Amino acid sequence: MRATVLHAARDIRLDEVPDPVIAVPSDAIVRVVAACVCGSDLWPYRGITPTEKPKRIGHEFVGVVEEKGRDVTGIAVGDTVIAPFYHCDGSCVNCRNGVSTSCVEGGWWGADDRDGHFADGGQGEYVRVPHAAGTLTVVPGPVDAALIPSLLTLSDVFGTGHHAAVSAGVRPGATVAVVGDGAVGLSGVLAAVRLGASRVVAMSRHEDRQRLAREFGATDVVAERGQEGIDRLADMFDGIGPDCVLECVGTKESMDQALRSARPGGQVGFVGVPNGGPELPVRTMFATNVGVRGGVAPVRGYVAELLPEVLDGSLTPGKVFTRELPLDDIAEAYRLMDEREEIKVLVRP
Amino acid sequence: MRATVLHAARDIRLDEVPDPVIAVPSDAIVRVVAACVCGSDLWPYRGITPTEKPKRIGHEFVGVVEEKGRDVTGIAVGDTVIAPFYHCDGSCVNCRNGVSTSCVEGGWWGADDRDGHFADGGQGEYVRVPHAAGTLTVVPGPVDAALIPSLLTLSDVFGTGHHAAVSAGVRPGATVAVVGDGAVGLSGVLAAVRLGASRVVAMSRHEDRQRLAREFGATDVVAERGQEGIDRLADMFDGIGPDCVLECVGTKESMDQALRSARPGGQVGFVGVPNGGPELPVRTMFATNVGVRGGVAPVRGYVAELLPEVLDGSLTPGKVFTRELPLDDIAEAYRLMDEREEIKVLVRP
Repeated sequence: MRATVLHAARDIRLDEVPDPVIAVPSDAIVRVVAACVCGSDLWPYRGITPTEKPKRIGHEFVGVVEEKGRDVTGIAVGDTVIAPFYHCDGSCVNCRNGVSTSCVEGGWWGADDRDGHFADGGQGEYVRVPHAAGTLTVVPGPVDAALIPSLLTLSDVFGTGHHAAVSAGVRPGATVAVVGDGAVGLSGVLAAVRLGASRVVAMSRHEDRQRLAREFGATDVVAERGQEGIDRLADMFDGIGPDCVLECVGTKESMDQALRSARPGGQVGFVGVPNGGPELPVRTMFATNVGVRGGVAPVRGYVAELLPEVLDGSLTPGKVFTRELPLDDIAEAYRLMDEREEIKVLVRP
Repeated sequence: MRATVLHAARDIRLDEVPDPVIAVPSDAIVRVVAACVCGSDLWPYRGITPTEKPKRIGHEFVGVVEEKGRDVTGIAVGDTVIAPFYHCDGSCVNCRNGVSTSCVEGGWWGADDRDGHFADGGQGEYVRVPHAAGTLTVVPGPVDAALIPSLLTLSDVFGTGHHAAVSAGVRPGATVAVVGDGAVGLSGVLAAVRLGASRVVAMSRHEDRQRLAREFGATDVVAERGQEGIDRLADMFDGIGPDCVLECVGTKESMDQALRSARPGGQVGFVGVPNGGPELPVRTMFATNVGVRGGVAPVRGYVAELLPEVLDGSLTPGKVFTRELPLDDIAEAYRLMDEREEIKVLVRP
């Protein structure tokens, strides 16, 4: 089959690789229907994290079950399924606690699982899915093809924006600012609106992203950054800033922006992958009582809550995909994301 | 009047100082009935934070209103009152949000207020209290003298332990570990038990403190620290650690202990004053989804919830005071705290 392989910084190719096979009875093989490029894929693509040998890549996909091991329950061959950006058994203590990203049996796409069997990356034709019953969510069929983009966002990007909002404590009536206008930040805007925030400020200086933020329900847009941005937010919210800030970038600057923007006693929900990122200034947090919570989003656990709204059309997170390409054009998909020409690119094998 | 003055590291004296007077109509003058020495007083006492010129000290007191300005409502001369470890107007946006430690008009004892008038330290005979109506809570009289120690803990130490527990998200059924066996840590144990934790582990290697922790309802005591302590906690709680960890020390080691002890998705509530302390390791937090929340405790807002239980005798946080001394012996009180001969020392002018 064909699958995306990162050979070195900016050297990304669609290579011929072995077809995946069932390795253990809890596996399934999924034919990928749609996948996409994540902001976090850009760290190795840009060489910010090194690629020492060619590596399969991609961790967001929806697909159709082609084959399943004998222990896989609740899923049938032919089902359309959503995979989270990791695999998990769904039954361990951490999964039961809602932290499936810390599954004691879990792991990551494009790497060996804990049994030493390879789990394919998501940007390819097929994926061997460990712990298929725990990892995959079945989408009740027949599945409307028009919903594929929104379903795909439950694999990572919208679930991650939702996690930022949940971690920031967004609840009805809360005031919210979102740092980061990538697909995750825009998902955070939509998630905050969905959770009942009374006012949601998108911090963005790009017109296309501002427009989508508004479409997702942002009540305000702030283009300023740094101290100017903080001052703007303070002006907007009683001189003290918003209740909740979603940090959706993962740099020192963005976390600093988030921490200093929240009102005293407020909360930062962070989901930006800390890229060699800052350590948090605990004295500032002590003085202001601003809390910080978040991390790698346990999106698998959010699908049950979000899927019905995607299926009935009331939630349309798939709008973050501003471009679709065939998998053959994966290198172009990375280029478009890298140069921020598109918000997020969907690829179809 | 006489008041405690820190002249230099370990040079602490009871000096003759000017009597306080009403400076603005929202002031009250309180005669101190009981005060105490805080763990945070030991930082300047030990010279860890420098004392550049003699400084009034002490920030916990209960007393009787001797005089009040014409704008002070809800408080009468002769009332017994509890002061939090700061002053606050009780009406600004931060106070209304429950973060009175960030009061936009507030300030600290032993320092000038925002109008440039001096607010006395708490370890003295009298204190000028700014924003008296916002700062002070009246204890309904007649006040049983035996309750004074427990009432005094609402000024800081028990309210701070309670803030650690609230910030750590302790709720009925939660599993909890408390890092730090000082008076705040022990208060945290009591607060976690009061909030319905199913199991509370006191981390302590001192027999007297272990005993009080048990008396406060700790179900377990762990004497090990560092990785050994983390492993013990993991063994006790499903291999992953407790839901909530209260960080009640403020050193790099204690915060590290707390962060690495909480289960994935758990929460650290921190109230230890970060003493040049560590920056928080954001990548660890990202990977584990352990949240961190806390800071300087807005104890003023907790008094209404806690006071009735102190008055009816069901809550006895005053047990942290293992010694009482006359204010004359303030230097001895500091020595006893510094050398950890007593858990907490109460002084009476």
